[in-house]
Order: sequence, then structure tokens, then C-alpha cells
Amino acid sequence: MDYKIALIPGDGIGPEIVREAKKVLDKVCEKYGHSFSYSEVLLGGASIDVHGVPLTDEAIATAKSSDAVLMGSIGGDAKTSPWYKLEPSKRPEAGLLAIRKALNLFANLRPAYLYNELRKACPLRDEIIGDGFDMIIVRELTGGLYFGERQTVEENGVKKAIDTLSYNENEIRRIAIKAFEIARKRRNKVTSVDKANVLDSSRLWRKVVEEVAKDYPDVTLEHMLVDNCAMQLVRDPKQFDVILTENMFGDILSDEASMVTGSIGMLSSASLNETKFGLYEPSHGSAPDIAGQDKANPIATILSAAMMLRFSLDMDKEADAVEAAVQKVLTEGYRTGDIMSEGCKLVGTKEMGDLIAAAL
Amino acid sequence: MDYKIALIPGDGIGPEIVREAKKVLDKVCEKYGHSFSYSEVLLGGASIDVHGVPLTDEAIATAKSSDAVLMGSIGGDAKTSPWYKLEPSKRPEAGLLAIRKALNLFANLRPAYLYNELRKACPLRDEIIGDGFDMIIVRELTGGLYFGERQTVEENGVKKAIDTLSYNENEIRRIAIKAFEIARKRRNKVTSVDKANVLDSSRLWRKVVEEVAKDYPDVTLEHMLVDNCAMQLVRDPKQFDVILTENMFGDILSDEASMVTGSIGMLSSASLNETKFGLYEPSHGSAPDIAGQDKANPIATILSAAMMLRFSLDMDKEADAVEAAVQKVLTEGYRTGDIMSEGCKLVGTKEMGDLIAAAL
Ligand SMILES: CC(C)[C@H](C(=O)O)[C@@H](O)C(=O)O
Ligand SMILES: CC(C)[C@H](C(=O)O)[C@@H](O)C(=O)O
Repeated sequence: MDYKIALIPGDGIGPEIVREAKKVLDKVCEKYGHSFSYSEVLLGGASIDVHGVPLTDEAIATAKSSDAVLMGSIGGDAKTSPWYKLEPSKRPEAGLLAIRKALNLFANLRPAYLYNELRKACPLRDEIIGDGFDMIIVRELTGGLYFGERQTVEENGVKKAIDTLSYNENEIRRIAIKAFEIARKRRNKVTSVDKANVLDSSRLWRKVVEEVAKDYPDVTLEHMLVDNCAMQLVRDPKQFDVILTENMFGDILSDEASMVTGSIGMLSSASLNETKFGLYEPSHGSAPDIAGQDKANPIATILSAAMMLRFSLDMDKEADAVEAAVQKVLTEGYRTGDIMSEGCKLVGTKEMGDLIAAAL
Repeated sequence: MDYKIALIPGDGIGPEIVREAKKVLDKVCEKYGHSFSYSEVLLGGASIDVHGVPLTDEAIATAKSSDAVLMGSIGGDAKTSPWYKLEPSKRPEAGLLAIRKALNLFANLRPAYLYNELRKACPLRDEIIGDGFDMIIVRELTGGLYFGERQTVEENGVKKAIDTLSYNENEIRRIAIKAFEIARKRRNKVTSVDKANVLDSSRLWRKVVEEVAKDYPDVTLEHMLVDNCAMQLVRDPKQFDVILTENMFGDILSDEASMVTGSIGMLSSASLNETKFGLYEPSHGSAPDIAGQDKANPIATILSAAMMLRFSLDMDKEADAVEAAVQKVLTEGYRTGDIMSEGCKLVGTKEMGDLIAAAL
């Protein structure tokens, strides 16, 4: 099949990890007889440097006319990058938020999976890890505090800043449906996380999630308060299958969950809209300190490409093959610096990409 | 000295843990020649059962006319307690929020400290724990999403719920000052946590915190995004001294931090206003499943009483003595069930209280 893929190399290590993911996709095409045409899209700092803004209409148009978007990472070191001298709406992150909204990517899927080979990197004790854990966070991505009205006003000489958190039933329903659909293909459990003892938006969230749950009698639903969830992720991550939550809570909990695996260089993500279209990116950031040094771990981006094959291009077999190739290379003991441990073979970004492509 | 203390036994294990804390305070009075007079205040479920509402004006008045408030815990099991059939504003938690606001308790201090004796209960690996960690979370407690306007409206038949997050410069300044003052008595480091790449309120937060920092050149200030902080608490809790943050982020991060110690039954908290007045309560909840069984760990409440001695009653020496008594009993190997480990002596709630009082 022929597909159009928009590539967003982005900032920091972005370009080098996207290069390796493309290498793996090229191999997929060769092996399975597909053809992908790529167009490059500027986002974040890379776009500011060229266009003065973190996202252009043209970039959105290119992304929209593609079947999927594969991204590296955006942003730089806030302490040193000139980008952070700009006003907030012109900084790299603003581009990321804008593209999520422009493409209506309301469903953010973030797997947090513990590879058996990388157990020692997990910060939790072996007794807690047990047989390992494998959860996915389904985070609402285009609503809540991220996209509510905000303003800074002055009252009697005192500045006051206001952000608003709002959700309507439709926004909650569509993300809940995604979570239940995903749970069905996994271990049939959804933990919906909110702060219903305080927030109106959480009370509406809970009500709608319960309505949606009626259509999924085969899936167990539990509600958990966000503060408790932040505890439970450390106390017993094995209890989770699918965590469903709103935008800000999802931001916090998915980062916590990814650190609980100990290997954020391994974690992919997908951001989907109502169609098959999606944007795929590693869960980690742009690591400006190691950019351009062939040190970055490309696996999260390669696994994001696998998610792209599965969710946007209906290529389950190919996605499985990429995941199996990653597993094989790990089993053979190859590691980038971030996941290195005694007795393993240290490789750079490019060699890791080569190895995974070759393992396909 | 004579002092008036309001006691809020509350719900679940509340009454039994407050009883042990009072036992320890009685011993303090005896030993140091103070006299405390107590009045009991109903809050939460205990108040609903008697008055139909979780907090009465009379309860507020009694608390206000005291020098400090010592509380157990409020709330019950949301799945079974009749309280959770009531509308949100009439449930136990609403009483807690209302008393915080009525007493203007804007500064919530939550220590997260790893006792050497309880290292094995810490979910993190020994390599990460190192020599242990000792941080305190300074959470803003009367602003933000908790107390913003909220409403649920209907637009074209679709319900929409809105919560607002707002902070003004004065609210941010007073909590920042608390954090810097506390840091000065500790290891001189403040980590201010926000989401300044998204929220206006966080950008104002950062600006004001930086202004306040100018008056504390001896204290190092760093800013951290909330998602990153949720990761860092798991990756390397030793890096933190004082974490300063707003209400909702503080709720989530303090619970995460308390679980990172592995011993939430040991963690105290203080909620202070602009004067010396404060409300003191354990960080843990009301554990309705073990209520009335002499199983609860009273130490967090006893340590909260120690914070009360220190912050509200200017009794540093007495506070130190209570903390030392707790340490002694731990060193001697006494444990309640929640912190029990091999080779230690299992005791109940009452015996633990007796032991600590006797160790004074
Ligand atoms: C860069 C930032 C705006 C973004 C977010 O908060 O959503 C990031 O943390 C993420 O989780 O993708
Ligand atoms: C009971 C609840 C409203 C409360 C809060 O969220 O503040 C609790 O979680 C806490 O942290 O004291």
C-alpha cells in the first residue's frame, strides 16, 4: 500500500531518532511491499528558527494531507535556548499544543511497559514489580486546563491569573469510548482517574464514564482519585491495565508511570483523532544535552512508528514485526547508554536503528 | 503554659488515633508543666451524622477560639458510607475544605521523610534511596481549582462542567515566603513546581516566586514542571529539600511523595494561617476498613501533635522530645501492622501510644 507520512524531526535529539525510525519503516516497506512517501514538517524550535513561529498553517496543511505524522521531540533547554526568551505563545511547546488542537488529536495513548530485560532499571523493588507490569494511559488531549480560556488581570494593583478547566459530555464520552475499546483488546479493566470530591468537571467525567461503561459489560470499571492514583502507581503498578483520565492529570500520571518503568527511552505514544489519523511520538523529551552525539535511544520513536503502523495504517502484522525486532535486539543484549547495564553491548543511536532494521 | 486545643476525632480510625495523640500530649503537659484544655469539634461524617452537614458555624467558632486544632481523619468508604449518597457539598470532604477556608489555612506542610528503621518498606530500590531522603512539601491550600468558581451548564442539551484555577500575587507571595522560611531552617533549597509552559496561573506563580527569592539569597531556587516533578520523586527523591507548589499539584505530589517513603502511617502535616494558629492532621486517610480494631498506626497523628507544639505553641523542646520518643520506640523494634517487618514486635494502636508516652 502507498501511504503519505509527515515527519516532524523537531528539536534536540528529535532529528536523529526520527532518522532511525524512518530506517526501520524503510525496511518494513521493503519487506512487506508497501511504499511510504514522506514530507518533512517543521514544529517547535525548528519552526521558530525558520518562520518565527512554532507552527505554521502550511505545516498543519501538510500534516492534514498525510495519513499519519511521526514526530521526534520538540523544545530545548529552557535555561539556555533563545526560544524561551519569547512570549509563551511563541515558544516550542505552544506549537505542540496547537498541532494537537488543529488535528483534533483528543486521544493520547501512552503505554508504560516493563521490559523483562530492563527490570533492573526499574526504580521499584523486585517484590513490587513481581512479574512486571503493562499498562496504558489514555489521556484526553484537547480539553481541560490546556485549552480553557485564560487571562491575567489586575485588580487594585494586584495581578491575578485565571485558567479554566472545562469538559462537556461529548468530549468525555469520546475519550472514554477509546479507553474501553482499548481495554477490550487488553485485560478488560479501566481505571478512570478524577478528583470528583472537589471538581465539577470530575463529577461530570465520572457520570459520563459510567454511562459509557454500560456498553462494555465485559470491562471492569473502577474510579480512583488522582492523588490516590499517584500513590498507587508507586505502590503497586501491576494493578493497572488502562488508566483513563483528563489532560492535566494524564500529563502528570503518564510521566510518573513512565518513570516507574525506569526506561523512558523505551516508551512510545500515539495521539489520535476520530478517524484513523494520528500523531506518533516518543514519551520522552528532546534531551538537548545529548543532541547530535549519537547517544540518544531511538527505540521509543521506533515503537511509536510501530503504533503508527497499527493504529493509522492497519498494519498489525508489520507493527508486531517491529515490536518483535526491538525485543530481539534487547534479548541479544544491545543497549544505548540510557538503558545500559553490566554485561550488555553499548551501541549508539545509529547502530541501534541498524540492528532493529536488520532484525526485521 | 495554658493552651486551648480543639480536637477533631473525625471518622474511621480518627477517634482512636487522636486518643493516642492526646495521651502523648497529656504526658508532655505533665513533664513540662503545661496545661492544655480540650474541646471536641465535629467535622466530616461525624458532623453529618449529628447535624446533617459536614461543618457547622459552631464548630468553626470553637476551632477559632482555640490555639490550635488537632485532627484525626475524615471521610469514609465512598462505596458503602451513606454520606456519599449526599450531594457533593454535603459530604465529609466538603467539611474539610470548608474548615481550611474558614480558618484561612493557606499553608499546608507535608514532610516526607524516610525513617532508617523503615527503609525496607520504601518501594524504591536501595541504590536510589541511598542515605535516605527528607523533604517537605509546602502546598498552597486555600486557592486554585479547589476554591475557584465552578458550575455545570447545559448547552444545546449537552452538559458542560467548568472549574476555575486562579491565583493572585498576594496568595502566591505568602505561600512562597513560608517555603523560603522553612528552607532556611533546613537545607536551603526550594523547588517550585508549576506548569508554566501551559498555565497563566503558573507563569504568575513563577514570577512571584522569583521576586520572593530575591529576599533569600542564601536559598537556592529551582523551577520544575509538575510532570517532571512526578517523575523525579520516583527517580531521585534525595534531590528535594522543600517543594513549593499550588493546591492541586500539591495534593497529587504530596501523596506520591508520601507513598515513596513507603510508610504513610508515619507522615504528619500542618495547615497554617498567617498567625501561629494551625490545624494538624496525619497525611493518611480514615482507613474505614480497620476502624475500631486497635490496628491503626497513631504515629502520624502523634507527629502531627509534635508539629503543633512546634508551630503553634512555640514548644520546640517538647516537639523534639515527642519526635525523639517516636524514634526510640521504632529503634526498640515496636511496630503497628502497617509498618511491621520480620524480627519486630507487633503492637496495637493503644500500645503504640502507651509506648511513645512512656518514652517521653
Ligand atoms: C510540552 C508539554 C506542553 C506537553 C504537555 O504537557 O502536554 C508534554 O509534557 C507532554 O506531555 O506531551
Ligand atoms: C479529602 C480531599 C478533599 C483532600 C484534598 O484533596 O485536599 C485530601 O486529599 C488532602 O490532600 O488533604
